[in-house]
Amino acid sequence: MKVRGRVYAPDLRSDDAECVLAPDESHHLAQVLRIRAGESVQVIDGRGGQWLATVATVGRREVVLTIDAALDATPEPPVLVTLGIGLLKGDQMDSVIRDATVLGASTVVPLVTDHVTVPTKAWQGGGPLDRWHRVAVAAAKQSGRAVVPAIQDVTHFDAFMASGARDAVVACIEPSADVPARPARLEFPRTPTVRLLVGPEGGWSATELDALGGVEADLLSLGPRTLRAEAVPIVALTLLWSSWGWTSSTPDPPSRLR
Amino acid sequence: MKVRGRVYAPDLRSDDAECVLAPDESHHLAQVLRIRAGESVQVIDGRGGQWLATVATVGRREVVLTIDAALDATPEPPVLVTLGIGLLKGDQMDSVIRDATVLGASTVVPLVTDHVTVPTKAWQGGGPLDRWHRVAVAAAKQSGRAVVPAIQDVTHFDAFMASGARDAVVACIEPSADVPARPARLEFPRTPTVRLLVGPEGGWSATELDALGGVEADLLSLGPRTLRAEAVPIVALTLLWSSWGWTSSTPDPPSRLR
Repeated sequence: MKVRGRVYAPDLRSDDAECVLAPDESHHLAQVLRIRAGESVQVIDGRGGQWLATVATVGRREVVLTIDAALDATPEPPVLVTLGIGLLKGDQMDSVIRDATVLGASTVVPLVTDHVTVPTKAWQGGGPLDRWHRVAVAAAKQSGRAVVPAIQDVTHFDAFMASGARDAVVACIEPSADVPARPARLEFPRTPTVRLLVGPEGGWSATELDALGGVEADLLSLGPRTLRAEAVPIVALTLLWSSWGWTSSTPDPPSRLR
Repeated sequence: MKVRGRVYAPDLRSDDAECVLAPDESHHLAQVLRIRAGESVQVIDGRGGQWLATVATVGRREVVLTIDAALDATPEPPVLVTLGIGLLKGDQMDSVIRDATVLGASTVVPLVTDHVTVPTKAWQGGGPLDRWHRVAVAAAKQSGRAVVPAIQDVTHFDAFMASGARDAVVACIEPSADVPARPARLEFPRTPTVRLLVGPEGGWSATELDALGGVEADLLSLGPRTLRAEAVPIVALTLLWSSWGWTSSTPDPPSRLR
């Protein structure tokens, strides 16, 4: 049976037989997809659970599903990556959250760094955090991911560096920075968790580079050209997976179509 | 002296002492950057040449530069990559051209494939090609690249496959395609030229997959999640450089800040 859509039900438990969707998810199915009772949908809980379900009843603000079967979820990456990213302006930040979700980050932490130019009022209060969470949910549904990354509160660089002491740190270095950085093609040691640091458009300050040196961060070059700020997390996450594989179960042999 | 901007002068020759900029480049310097005589700019010819120059005279539609010195250009990638990409709609295609330029493609060929849904009238005539060239020029200037990739005419998939017979072919395979694809972490053999193929949003048809098999294309997996169409060339080019290095002179030893 053709699956008509993917919906997010964060409170679904593995032994639930039925699921009452939240108003926004119900609205999407009922009004946008114009789904009808009897049609099939996929459900994700944002924590790696994925189910096949049948639409039982369609109300304007409440769609009820019958859970049919648990599905094998799309495989997750082999390493839990926390992306710490210097704050960008609104639409750029949405773009970063979306692509970080699609490219397998497990957590995103928006950072205040020395060269961040976004004004404080732009990110204070719960508004941006709620929006970023919605962007992550939408990206998970669209890309086929069963995990929605956690979007943490905006954090100062120093506080971020003081946390997660046992994580390996990989920091992206802009072409204009006068520090030697790891070229693209070297292997990274695979560790269970990594913090991937991406600076704001103005790059890292000298103080921040010192702090990265203090934790023996791997400094990663993204090439000699200046990337768009929104492209940096895409390139950086791709470089990590090029070293570690897209999933923990990536098959070994190369393959060609014959 | 602070360099105020980068300009594109495709007709500049290496022994020229002076350069009269075209109207659009002149307008940008004079009206947008409000540059004055005596200020410094960088000049690229789009073919790998890069110079330092001083503004001699500023007219509304004509800025004249005095060439001061040839500069070492930003290093180019170690392999000439021709990106063949299934046509996307206008703004997505602009985004692809821009990121392919920044990420080092040497040529871009917009392709008509079986699953392309962009109507013929959207790409016929010289309009789109002119716009794509301007997007590539702007991206080269902004990213610090001295080479502007050639944007070829829109080409049918079959004609593209029939050309460049001795080039290696790498084709990106979408997660839903039921073919075995090379995982991210394997090494590609480095050849002087490569054609990198990216399908449209609907992916490759069975006929096209057969044709790719016929030329023993390397089929490249971009992971188990569905990427945004505009992100695919970024990820694919990054995977190539992760195997080959960002530049032909990428230094060997890994480095850490101490």
